Amino acid sequence: MKDEKFAKEISDINESLTDWYTDVCKKAKLVDYGPCKGTMIMREYGYAIWELIQKDLDRRIKETGHNNVYFPLFIPYSYFKKEAEHVEGFAPELAAITEFRGEKLDDPMVVRPTSETVICEAFSRWVNSYKDLPVKINQWANVVRMEKTTRPFLRTTEFLWQEGHTLHRTKEEADEEAYKMWNVYIDFCRESLALPLLAGKKSESEKFAGAEYTLTIESIMRDGKSLQSGTSHNFGQKFAKAFDIKFLDSDEKLKYPYQTSWGLTTRIIGAIIMAHGDERGLRLPPNVAPVQVVLVPIAAHKNPEVVNKCNEIAAQLKAEGIRTTVDNSDNAPGWKFNEWEVKGVPVRIEIGPKDLENKACMIFRRDKKTKETVELLNVVNYVKTLLSDINTELYNEAYEIMQGRIKKVDSYDELKDAINNQKVAFAPFCCTEECEKKVKTEMSATVRCIPEAQTLNVKHCVCCGKPCNSDVYIARSY
Amino acid sequence: MKDEKFAKEISDINESLTDWYTDVCKKAKLVDYGPCKGTMIMREYGYAIWELIQKDLDRRIKETGHNNVYFPLFIPYSYFKKEAEHVEGFAPELAAITEFRGEKLDDPMVVRPTSETVICEAFSRWVNSYKDLPVKINQWANVVRMEKTTRPFLRTTEFLWQEGHTLHRTKEEADEEAYKMWNVYIDFCRESLALPLLAGKKSESEKFAGAEYTLTIESIMRDGKSLQSGTSHNFGQKFAKAFDIKFLDSDEKLKYPYQTSWGLTTRIIGAIIMAHGDERGLRLPPNVAPVQVVLVPIAAHKNPEVVNKCNEIAAQLKAEGIRTTVDNSDNAPGWKFNEWEVKGVPVRIEIGPKDLENKACMIFRRDKKTKETVELLNVVNYVKTLLSDINTELYNEAYEIMQGRIKKVDSYDELKDAINNQKVAFAPFCCTEECEKKVKTEMSATVRCIPEAQTLNVKHCVCCGKPCNSDVYIARSY
Repeated sequence: MKDEKFAKEISDINESLTDWYTDVCKKAKLVDYGPCKGTMIMREYGYAIWELIQKDLDRRIKETGHNNVYFPLFIPYSYFKKEAEHVEGFAPELAAITEFRGEKLDDPMVVRPTSETVICEAFSRWVNSYKDLPVKINQWANVVRMEKTTRPFLRTTEFLWQEGHTLHRTKEEADEEAYKMWNVYIDFCRESLALPLLAGKKSESEKFAGAEYTLTIESIMRDGKSLQSGTSHNFGQKFAKAFDIKFLDSDEKLKYPYQTSWGLTTRIIGAIIMAHGDERGLRLPPNVAPVQVVLVPIAAHKNPEVVNKCNEIAAQLKAEGIRTTVDNSDNAPGWKFNEWEVKGVPVRIEIGPKDLENKACMIFRRDKKTKETVELLNVVNYVKTLLSDINTELYNEAYEIMQGRIKKVDSYDELKDAINNQKVAFAPFCCTEECEKKVKTEMSATVRCIPEAQTLNVKHCVCCGKPCNSDVYIARSY
Repeated sequence: MKDEKFAKEISDINESLTDWYTDVCKKAKLVDYGPCKGTMIMREYGYAIWELIQKDLDRRIKETGHNNVYFPLFIPYSYFKKEAEHVEGFAPELAAITEFRGEKLDDPMVVRPTSETVICEAFSRWVNSYKDLPVKINQWANVVRMEKTTRPFLRTTEFLWQEGHTLHRTKEEADEEAYKMWNVYIDFCRESLALPLLAGKKSESEKFAGAEYTLTIESIMRDGKSLQSGTSHNFGQKFAKAFDIKFLDSDEKLKYPYQTSWGLTTRIIGAIIMAHGDERGLRLPPNVAPVQVVLVPIAAHKNPEVVNKCNEIAAQLKAEGIRTTVDNSDNAPGWKFNEWEVKGVPVRIEIGPKDLENKACMIFRRDKKTKETVELLNVVNYVKTLLSDINTELYNEAYEIMQGRIKKVDSYDELKDAINNQKVAFAPFCCTEECEKKVKTEMSATVRCIPEAQTLNVKHCVCCGKPCNSDVYIARSY
């Protein structure tokens, strides 16, 4: 009965994940559309999730020895032309200012789509000696890419992200850094967002424009589509050469340093929504839930003590650092339950006159949608354990869903069949431009990543039949 | 002797505050110039100050009941035209994108100079009933204003800020909000930045384009110039009418709500630099100093225990939440002293072999440039008290400097004389457009603010001689 009521307000998650997604974004007041094409407004509840993501990831970035900086929004267009692959990759998406106070600019100012070029120019002035290395910086910023089709969080013309940029004395150090930050993302997604991932290298055609290689993390949504959720690039010396960044090494020789960059964006919120959501709405991982516990007084008109007790318990939870709110609004309990369930609050506590008599309360966990009676004296400890359990449960559920979507295939027909049945195919694949193009044209699918650990068996590409090194994940994507 | 050495590297603060300012920004590695006109790069040390400012002010903004949001960077140009005064004020400074993927836009996308218009459009959709009020939101964002002349922090084409935006049911509530946030700024500047201020209303010609009134805080620099450091605006119903924001009140009548906005920008870092700096460089208020204590091992080659003791003391300080670093670089102690003094680190601890023998260390306080011997056992408590003392001392010094710059004047000649002698004049003034224009043309000075508390004496404008209500502060400004 109840779920039917919800169903009226939110599209059926099993019928159309994308309609469900749009409904939930709106109903939970995460976002609204901005007036310019493809832009979004992050509302209070949506932005609070981003703030929690920032706080957690920023700590991890600083713990690995990076400091924050801020580079300008505007980059001269001429900078983009210095690295040939880079400008080719980004040119169609660039937004540019062509006039300054009425005067035409010879070199238009591009609104940054990413900051490698402007940062490289500064590096070329800042770095002179091996003593200046490594440079390890990060920035939290907005970037703009003029996309044709957009969707809240997943693809917007402006989005928020962090972009780390580092310079190293040796190739080995740069490799180590690129892998380290990729692992920071993996740990962050697992521990704080309860997101299981596929992780590996991007193929040549899917890597970042200008990189030697790109490491990616991919979240698998319940419809079998993959969502690129964070990337770490190793540029080798490409940008250093293009921007003439040189340092005097201890052997008195001038050398080009090795460079990495790595980024994670507001699109990760889309991954959280789609990986964990259910027919009632969001299910937020406790670590990034703006409200972790909501208290709902029941039949408070019969006994005003109910509200006092809710406030008392809320104060106890807050004292333990648990983000807690009491819903004292005029709405009926059922309406409140609905609203907080759509918003994905992990734990709901209901206290009514009967509960007061029994010195107990009802605790609802959003992940499993089950209720339990808990003694009031025991609430704080119970909730602490529960929040941790919910994180584990969400991870395990998402992991099961992901595993259920992965299909090992050994032929082109099997591959096609898997993709058309909304699976992520795991297939031996050569990753040449020709085979990637074929898969893209015939199945609208791409190589999502090439896992690092590979068996040594002889493999043959499911597409061209030639020997190849790797099994790779192939899927449609957001 | 020592100060002569510093003088070679940094311009004399008493000869030219502006040359000194540029030198210090560069030497302390706060900023660098960006490649596009008037933009700046905030380097690690400079950005760390901004992060500390953000953390502190964000807490105050949330404690007063505001939540953060994020609105798009791009605003349709047509939105600006809806509020006549607003577009008139901002038009010359707007930067706009005129094409989207090669197609000309009918309505150019303006890079936000401030977000009232785009936020009002959303308010008009979000607010329907008195139950939706008040709305109290804030955002941390970058904004762009195409300025003719720029200087790091003080005036840059792109800057970072927070902008709060609120909607209220009644005029009284909006007044209360505008004043409350103005007081939040005053408390923040005093408590966390050790900045004394002049505070009051802006005159008609100096208020924000579109506001009913603007409250300002003004920092007075040691050269007698004023620096607008934060503003709080009450829009009345102006924007609500322009954007058709209406709510159904409890009396069943449709009404326009009352609106405020308030902002504080990266320019506050310029105020910190200029208000507290001295001939050796920065003197950072402890609350926003990225490094509060630096430990310098002395003659460690004679006794390696010295470095261990430095690390031990650093660990003790860090455990107390004090931002501490040990300078283990190869540089000579004198070089280190110089560098950390330029960077304005409030406290320096020197430990050498002799100190170890005496179970003591030397503690240097950056504000007074004095040293004292302190027992090692007592260091943590000593430093805690010292950091608080330094904040008070910096405030008192800046307050004395400010007071020394203020001159009460009672005639036009005295006013002119005061301004030409780099004073802030406190003068009876009518604040009509005509008199303001005269002062601006003849003295390059403006009304900085009209203090709230006024004596009831009859006053006569020093400019036109007509009766007027207020004594006002008139000064040149950054």
